[in-house]
Amino acid sequence: MKLKVNRDARTPIAQQIEAGIRTWIAAHGAGGGRRLPSIRRLAATHHISRNAVIDAYERLVAAGLVRSRPGSGFYVADSAAALVSQPAATSGLEEVTNGLWGLFSANEHTLKLGCGWLPSHWREGDDLIHAIRQVARKSRSGIFEYSTPQGPEELRRLIQERLRPLAINADAQQIVMTGGGSHSLDLLVRMLLEPGDVVFVESPGYYNLFGLLHLQRIRVIGVPRLADGPDIERLEALLAQYQPKLFYINSVFHNPTGSTLTPAIAHRVLQLAERHDFQIIEDDIYADFQHAPTTRLAALDGLNRVLYLGSFSKSLSSSLRVGFIASPPSLVQRLVDIKMLTSISASRFAEQVVTTMLQNGSYRKLTERLRTKLANQMALALSILKKSNWEVYTEPAGGMFVWAKPPATITPEALSELADRCEVMLSPGHLFFADHQPTPWLRLNVAYMQDPRAKAFIDAVREPTLP
Amino acid sequence: MKLKVNRDARTPIAQQIEAGIRTWIAAHGAGGGRRLPSIRRLAATHHISRNAVIDAYERLVAAGLVRSRPGSGFYVADSAAALVSQPAATSGLEEVTNGLWGLFSANEHTLKLGCGWLPSHWREGDDLIHAIRQVARKSRSGIFEYSTPQGPEELRRLIQERLRPLAINADAQQIVMTGGGSHSLDLLVRMLLEPGDVVFVESPGYYNLFGLLHLQRIRVIGVPRLADGPDIERLEALLAQYQPKLFYINSVFHNPTGSTLTPAIAHRVLQLAERHDFQIIEDDIYADFQHAPTTRLAALDGLNRVLYLGSFSKSLSSSLRVGFIASPPSLVQRLVDIKMLTSISASRFAEQVVTTMLQNGSYRKLTERLRTKLANQMALALSILKKSNWEVYTEPAGGMFVWAKPPATITPEALSELADRCEVMLSPGHLFFADHQPTPWLRLNVAYMQDPRAKAFIDAVREPTLP
Repeated sequence: MKLKVNRDARTPIAQQIEAGIRTWIAAHGAGGGRRLPSIRRLAATHHISRNAVIDAYERLVAAGLVRSRPGSGFYVADSAAALVSQPAATSGLEEVTNGLWGLFSANEHTLKLGCGWLPSHWREGDDLIHAIRQVARKSRSGIFEYSTPQGPEELRRLIQERLRPLAINADAQQIVMTGGGSHSLDLLVRMLLEPGDVVFVESPGYYNLFGLLHLQRIRVIGVPRLADGPDIERLEALLAQYQPKLFYINSVFHNPTGSTLTPAIAHRVLQLAERHDFQIIEDDIYADFQHAPTTRLAALDGLNRVLYLGSFSKSLSSSLRVGFIASPPSLVQRLVDIKMLTSISASRFAEQVVTTMLQNGSYRKLTERLRTKLANQMALALSILKKSNWEVYTEPAGGMFVWAKPPATITPEALSELADRCEVMLSPGHLFFADHQPTPWLRLNVAYMQDPRAKAFIDAVREPTLP
Repeated sequence: MKLKVNRDARTPIAQQIEAGIRTWIAAHGAGGGRRLPSIRRLAATHHISRNAVIDAYERLVAAGLVRSRPGSGFYVADSAAALVSQPAATSGLEEVTNGLWGLFSANEHTLKLGCGWLPSHWREGDDLIHAIRQVARKSRSGIFEYSTPQGPEELRRLIQERLRPLAINADAQQIVMTGGGSHSLDLLVRMLLEPGDVVFVESPGYYNLFGLLHLQRIRVIGVPRLADGPDIERLEALLAQYQPKLFYINSVFHNPTGSTLTPAIAHRVLQLAERHDFQIIEDDIYADFQHAPTTRLAALDGLNRVLYLGSFSKSLSSSLRVGFIASPPSLVQRLVDIKMLTSISASRFAEQVVTTMLQNGSYRKLTERLRTKLANQMALALSILKKSNWEVYTEPAGGMFVWAKPPATITPEALSELADRCEVMLSPGHLFFADHQPTPWLRLNVAYMQDPRAKAFIDAVREPTLP
């Protein structure tokens, strides 16, 4: 097998190899069982890295064209015949993870305008460093020992206090500490769902969740997200058609639209949950960015059908991996069992650092400053976008995200070209839709909009001067 | 419903409630659908805590006798009729998690003689605290940002170096950082197995894994663990009967027997893996307790069929949650994708602390001291047990575990009574068997055997003076 490799092309070597093997399979017959060259051999004959070949084979395995037999090598898959004529479309899982990979692997000089976290220079270090030093100095168990599977009682009690102003009455016994929002979702998905179950998600919505549900073979149905919450009319129509086990909702500063659930819609959603007997995951990881608390589903429902998620990743630190679930009492033990079997416990050190900052008030003060700063930055971003003829889906009062559409005069290709030129990285809008439909809408993170590269990008989009 | 509650009984209130509801269901007909009293009501009428009632209902739900309908309450399950006459046997999952729960919830004054980690006073703090302070002071990204999904390249490179003396040639690109050994196992189980698949485990073996496999609905078959590794004859017989996807093996200082795989057995296992086409998880989390490296499966196999696990939890800190998988190249991308979808990344802070200690040599020195101390302690423990007429399964050269059987003169009940009286907590031996068969063997952790309570217990077992 001799494949064409162009080192100067923009397409990564691995993708070139992948395309080459696809063509080879098509040309040499796609009957299953033919052995393909070894990683070592392909790498040597083409003077490329083994990693590039590994990557290419991995994509072909994921696409169902190639089968890997451990200890033996790679073979054309039996299913290749049916697949080889299709373009190198990525699977849902791969597309989602590629999107995320892009954000993690982008070079340091690229501005992550579309990403889901705060820029490092927005984070405040002094109080956190102080808390880290204090735990390191004072707590032997904090630096050495497993935490309890449910998480330290003192921390859960402090979280109970923090939920009170949101009118969520959770006993510390109902709170389970986790390694952040994604870990919380994973635990819940494993506890509540079986392969083939139907889950409703908001569309646009949190794309990592779509990948997780796909991984667990859950059927994902998108409910349109409007400026005041899920589209109730559409939700009712979908409920006539499907019997979901679960509906996943971002109540405050929704990802990606920045919108916030109104009390009326919250009430309607809960009524429908009662009538159609589904549970709700209320993902409230942006709660601490909000000035005056609005209505939470968990508050109306009393943590009965609603499982409520919180996190310290967005406000305090994404590095520590601390989040929590407030759960109906009857589900706590099972949740903790699953957590214990899959990870023993979360990091006791990280939990004690968060405990320290909740106890001494520094976390409260930090979030107060942060939410003021974000609200100001949101106002500024909205005014820039307006002046530059971008359409805004809804005007968020705060938080990080605005869902915006560039002027219709610019093509998607030109937009992508300008972003590259301005060293700006975007989160492609289609990833946020459950069905990955193409869309001109983009998620922008307003915390990055002060940067000159963001300004240059917005300016360039307004008056494109493409070659 | 009026249940008998005896506050002075040794049986916990929750278990009394559970037994009472079982009796009630049996007496009042086990037809499905009957509504049971609410948590609040049962707690109020019996003057007991709501948690006790929640716990009781949760056990009944797990046992299939009761069904929980979120938002509505608890009902007799349809399956209750078939189950109600059975004793309150715990499910495999529950039994395992109860075993672990015991270790976590034991009061501080109990000596955890059967547990799987080092006592806090054995851990050395200075270098770790130094590394924590250094990362906190020097690295903004370390305290704030997500790690990359695969983990920092520098850390993976350092681990690559550490694997070299074991003759394991893993490229840094083949290493995936995880949140510890249990998290590694969970990622692998999810990637490699489907419900209904057969997995071979060592028996006795690591009981948390049995629970995890049970959770994922994997069929678990135990292969006896002998002093030199898995029982090859029995393995061959089982391979004539089953087609396992995977065989899980602890090569060095096996949990719970303390035994170490010999090169000849390692070679035979790999031959059988080739012939019967199964993969192997080599769990080597006690590697750093070993003085002179012995043969690893991953070294013979070249990380082809073998997935190799390591961890810093046992040696450095269980709190930080840092472990890794060295994987065949073709599986790396998928593994990282699953990790990303289920947790985004591990803790960057913890990863940087470990990186610092690997770089400055303090981790190497710490493990050198630790392994000498453990080897001495093992020798001491073996001599104490011998003198006290305990039988030892095999004499480990180091590590934490010895698998030992008390003198036949003592009954299991008396042993348990003496342990309670001496404030010693044991790990019941049957948990370590895949089929939970009763056994007089116990796992003892030699690092706890210096404690006067351990000595008092061993003495008391030798000359029991029970009332």
